[in-house]
Amino acid sequence: MDETPGFLNAVHTPVPMIDSARIHRNISAMSSRANSAGVRFRPHFKTHQSAVIGEWFREAGVSGITVSSVSMARYFAENQWTDITLAFPFNVRELAELNQLDGLADIHLLADHPDTVAALAAGVTRGHRVFVKIDTGYHRTGIPWDRKTDILALVRQIESGSRLAFAGILTHSGHSYHCSGPEEVKSVFRETLVRMNSVRDYLRGNDIQDCEISVGDTPGCSVVESFEGVDEIRPGNFVFYDLMQLSLGACDEEGLALAVVCPVTGIYPDRNEIVVLGGAVHFSKERLEGVNGQVVYGYAIAITSDGFGPLNRNVCLVTLSQEHGVVQAPAEIIRKMRIGDLLAFVPVHSCLVADLFGEYLDVSGETVPRLNSASAGSAQRFAPPVNSNSVSF
Amino acid sequence: MDETPGFLNAVHTPVPMIDSARIHRNISAMSSRANSAGVRFRPHFKTHQSAVIGEWFREAGVSGITVSSVSMARYFAENQWTDITLAFPFNVRELAELNQLDGLADIHLLADHPDTVAALAAGVTRGHRVFVKIDTGYHRTGIPWDRKTDILALVRQIESGSRLAFAGILTHSGHSYHCSGPEEVKSVFRETLVRMNSVRDYLRGNDIQDCEISVGDTPGCSVVESFEGVDEIRPGNFVFYDLMQLSLGACDEEGLALAVVCPVTGIYPDRNEIVVLGGAVHFSKERLEGVNGQVVYGYAIAITSDGFGPLNRNVCLVTLSQEHGVVQAPAEIIRKMRIGDLLAFVPVHSCLVADLFGEYLDVSGETVPRLNSASAGSAQRFAPPVNSNSVSF
Repeated sequence: MDETPGFLNAVHTPVPMIDSARIHRNISAMSSRANSAGVRFRPHFKTHQSAVIGEWFREAGVSGITVSSVSMARYFAENQWTDITLAFPFNVRELAELNQLDGLADIHLLADHPDTVAALAAGVTRGHRVFVKIDTGYHRTGIPWDRKTDILALVRQIESGSRLAFAGILTHSGHSYHCSGPEEVKSVFRETLVRMNSVRDYLRGNDIQDCEISVGDTPGCSVVESFEGVDEIRPGNFVFYDLMQLSLGACDEEGLALAVVCPVTGIYPDRNEIVVLGGAVHFSKERLEGVNGQVVYGYAIAITSDGFGPLNRNVCLVTLSQEHGVVQAPAEIIRKMRIGDLLAFVPVHSCLVADLFGEYLDVSGETVPRLNSASAGSAQRFAPPVNSNSVSF
Repeated sequence: MDETPGFLNAVHTPVPMIDSARIHRNISAMSSRANSAGVRFRPHFKTHQSAVIGEWFREAGVSGITVSSVSMARYFAENQWTDITLAFPFNVRELAELNQLDGLADIHLLADHPDTVAALAAGVTRGHRVFVKIDTGYHRTGIPWDRKTDILALVRQIESGSRLAFAGILTHSGHSYHCSGPEEVKSVFRETLVRMNSVRDYLRGNDIQDCEISVGDTPGCSVVESFEGVDEIRPGNFVFYDLMQLSLGACDEEGLALAVVCPVTGIYPDRNEIVVLGGAVHFSKERLEGVNGQVVYGYAIAITSDGFGPLNRNVCLVTLSQEHGVVQAPAEIIRKMRIGDLLAFVPVHSCLVADLFGEYLDVSGETVPRLNSASAGSAQRFAPPVNSNSVSF
């Protein structure tokens, strides 16, 4: 094994570690894809929720962003982001909180129901651009793309609100996450664009000339060859990627930029298992089916002083309870393990994992704050150092 | 529908609501079971993690508690709990944090590996009672119950540490969560006791006379008729119970004391679905297989001014993404729903859900703080009131 990077000595309890070099590369790659296609890159910040990582996007030329809650909009508005799309059908119970953002940033909203638009028209204290959310096949939110008269009616209702302006149509093809590989992802993306453009054509035929098309799933944005027919892309997960994206073919192993580092607290050679302090409260219970149909919550990855190393699918997080993680590993790795060693695991879904922590630890040893950095849970994570063995393979 | 309790007007974003009357009843019932059997009741506080709810246990005569992390031990020690078992094989990287609790409380520890005991013997600055963790069939942590010479060796190693004293043997029969019903749960409990007593008999035959037996899973403690052969029980989940416990027969519907209240943000009559603001970051992704093998993340429950009302399994949380929850419901309920209404759902696993929030809202309208109350995520949850429809059925 390689030498342990010194910053790991300060890790006592589970810590989300990021590889900033990989993040910069992920941002740069997606930004280039958007730029060369001539589409606006409006990344979704719900994945990282970090003002510091936000700055890395700003350095890559990003000026408009996407968030998924009013509190996230406030956090980024307070960090000098002034062009923010709140990509969740607006929750009318938060009208007062929305109005409290007046003057801080331009917040663009989503709606798919007349009552939401009515509440906005009656309640906003400043102008907002409003997107109509379209369901192009995911069946989570949005007006089905083929219910064109309903879409047109909502557009007209938005236009009639004195402080509201129709921005365009927005969709999230989340069903791409259920695809079997890149070819199927591309096919979902193409279908999405055909449907969105058919809605725009219908609106144009009904005197609605200005209508942007905004799409956004990370798998699609990562693999398609063409963004023709799109004005704006809103991927988010690509900043860290994760095992789900890897399994879809949306990234390669070098794209993986978030892992949770966990102390080894138990060694069970008879079962070829290790137990780490690291459970559902650190990894979420998002799971994947691995080889042989086995449930996977994470694969181990090496952490070196040069950043993340190779993924090791033989060291696999197979069971999670509240704070315990059970890890299956080959006998030769179990033999080398010592109580108090650290193991790092790439999670299945990085967005959900990141949301469980108050800050990140970069492989440089720097801490990187995020939205909920004030939380007590993270306060003791970076305490006085102890010695440890490596997490390299 | 009944009238909406006034305190619900203050709910803007997902809030974990508790029914304090039900909690008091759950505490009282478990306390009575322990008292009439003459066993010590040392409840696990990792479920609620609340100093206020802790006081309700104190009023029921509880003086010793269980926690699962050093930070949880600190929180309760600072809230005048002086007799605390940290029921996780001790994480040797937290020795400094453990020693910082000296003088605040007596912390009893767990070990199942010689290196853990060696690190404790070399590093603690004050005396600790140490339990040997036994694996009676769950296969998560612990020395297998039938490896008696290994158990005896660890006991002798503990006894030889100048600041360590052997406390007894402790197990968690978590495999009871995979049982098909109360009879199977009872059978797991009986088997656990046979195995634990066989370990104790062996130790006594080897001159280890003082050996407490501590057991603890909520399903077992909720349904068995006898605690004979047990010194201490450590259930935790029973304070709130949840859908998993209900499905095991460990509680009835009146035991359910935690639900997440969510605003309705989308209504989709064509699919018989509603979308709420309430996703994996509020419910965790713990799931259950409901009827027809369908995945269930929560069932709706009525909230009235008298507390929680009946469970409604026809209104079912079937898909969760980061902030979205998709709810299936009968057409007649969908017809009555309005954008901005509130729906409350009992989660599958209350421990994981409670851990996602900074405080609870009681049905009395009072807020109840918990360990991570300082977190920014909860700061805006109880904001100025808005009007809303009912969550009664």
